[in-house]
Amino acid sequence: MNKQQLFENIKRKKSFLCVGLDTDIKKIPEHLLKEEDPIFAFNKAIIDATADLCIAYKPNLAFYESLGVKGWIAFEKTVSYIKKNYSDQFIIADAKRGDIGNTSEMYARSFFDELDLDSVTVAPYMGEDSVKPFLIYPEKWVILLALTSNKGSHDFQLTEDANGERLFEKVLKTSQNWASDEQMMYVVGATQGKMFQDIRKHVPNHFLLVPGVGAQGGSLEEVCKYGMNKMCGLIVNSSRAIIYADKTENFAIAAKAAAKAVQVEMEEQLKAIL
Amino acid sequence: MNKQQLFENIKRKKSFLCVGLDTDIKKIPEHLLKEEDPIFAFNKAIIDATADLCIAYKPNLAFYESLGVKGWIAFEKTVSYIKKNYSDQFIIADAKRGDIGNTSEMYARSFFDELDLDSVTVAPYMGEDSVKPFLIYPEKWVILLALTSNKGSHDFQLTEDANGERLFEKVLKTSQNWASDEQMMYVVGATQGKMFQDIRKHVPNHFLLVPGVGAQGGSLEEVCKYGMNKMCGLIVNSSRAIIYADKTENFAIAAKAAAKAVQVEMEEQLKAIL
Repeated sequence: MNKQQLFENIKRKKSFLCVGLDTDIKKIPEHLLKEEDPIFAFNKAIIDATADLCIAYKPNLAFYESLGVKGWIAFEKTVSYIKKNYSDQFIIADAKRGDIGNTSEMYARSFFDELDLDSVTVAPYMGEDSVKPFLIYPEKWVILLALTSNKGSHDFQLTEDANGERLFEKVLKTSQNWASDEQMMYVVGATQGKMFQDIRKHVPNHFLLVPGVGAQGGSLEEVCKYGMNKMCGLIVNSSRAIIYADKTENFAIAAKAAAKAVQVEMEEQLKAIL
Repeated sequence: MNKQQLFENIKRKKSFLCVGLDTDIKKIPEHLLKEEDPIFAFNKAIIDATADLCIAYKPNLAFYESLGVKGWIAFEKTVSYIKKNYSDQFIIADAKRGDIGNTSEMYARSFFDELDLDSVTVAPYMGEDSVKPFLIYPEKWVILLALTSNKGSHDFQLTEDANGERLFEKVLKTSQNWASDEQMMYVVGATQGKMFQDIRKHVPNHFLLVPGVGAQGGSLEEVCKYGMNKMCGLIVNSSRAIIYADKTENFAIAAKAAAKAVQVEMEEQLKAIL
């Protein structure tokens, strides 16, 4: 999917919501455990309930890997299901990979060639050759970690160099030599509200993937105020607050309601640019 | 496995070699492709041929993930095979994970609880809470990326802060608040030979996992000169130079010979401390 198509979807759906599929066998409603593939059954119900209200899904690889082979099967089935039934959805493999060139090539092959996903999250620590192998696939995206939503983001990401440039700023600047805003996005946590001003100085036109709204406490209003650009430029993720909105047999209806509440807020915010 | 046990294995085998199982379906000998599980068949032959000469195996997750479910099955079978037949081997999941706390918990559950591996490589970019969930498992290890072997390592890892401290040094220093040398190791690339002096100033007693000898061109002698400590403190990995030493039906014999050549060099180097 290219940038313009993504923006068209945002305008049509009046939403820039990404639903994070952090599906944990220990947290899904009990009645699903009798299904042959409980994880997929849960995801399918969540997807059917929310697809009208979001423009992206973000399966978090850790949750599938933790189940070994079974989890990997559930992940592949989930991706196929989205692609077959909701082909306008942008699919993000939240994998936070990053390795030497020949290894990154294998990851790229896995996510883009085998699974035909739209994007993958990548960690910048190992530099250019850990990122470039992902960029040879047309209309596929690298979403590079810049400023994350967690407490530990302060440990290294805010470290200033001799010129006062913080590490996340160096990541933003350096990585623009590797790819344009047609192939690269950045992860910027919603918990870093006002930092979006600084981020936008470096990357005015890029899309940003924004985790941390919902369970982690970030404010959508603040993110939009400081982070939105004329093509929206934001994909805001919510995982737990939507998919675990209810743990009974009504979980999908509750997820739909939770997604709808966010979409309504987003529609309001989008008025600034549409 | 604890640190003392690891050192005992090194002394007994006169080796600190780790064989990297970067098994690529496109690179293994053609006759194996008729096997039901060619990846596992290859690994099994490599392991049987090299187990006497090494103290660790490092399956690189990317290579298995790129094959989807089949790859994950081959990975799990490989781990089980090592644990059952060569229980003295230290197994490293080369995964380079690192995510917010609740996600890292899932990865830790996957690698330590489900698969019972000894260690996992972790990327430091997201800071403390991305690493800590791996540290609750006794005698399991985090191997944190510090200074990697690739060209891109220069992009961010060498960035100096206002006090002249480079990012990899800050990672070494900060992470020592999270765990001791009984639970933490560091990745330091062999291609950074003389930098081992600087590394050892910060972490004199830690084990270091050293990729980059062999195909990537690092020198074992230089690594030992600047990096060895009184408990050896080095696990030196070689992947391609061993497992792809030959691509005919003799591949396992050639792998054994390649591993033996490295082990002999290591035995020589170990004389300095044994």
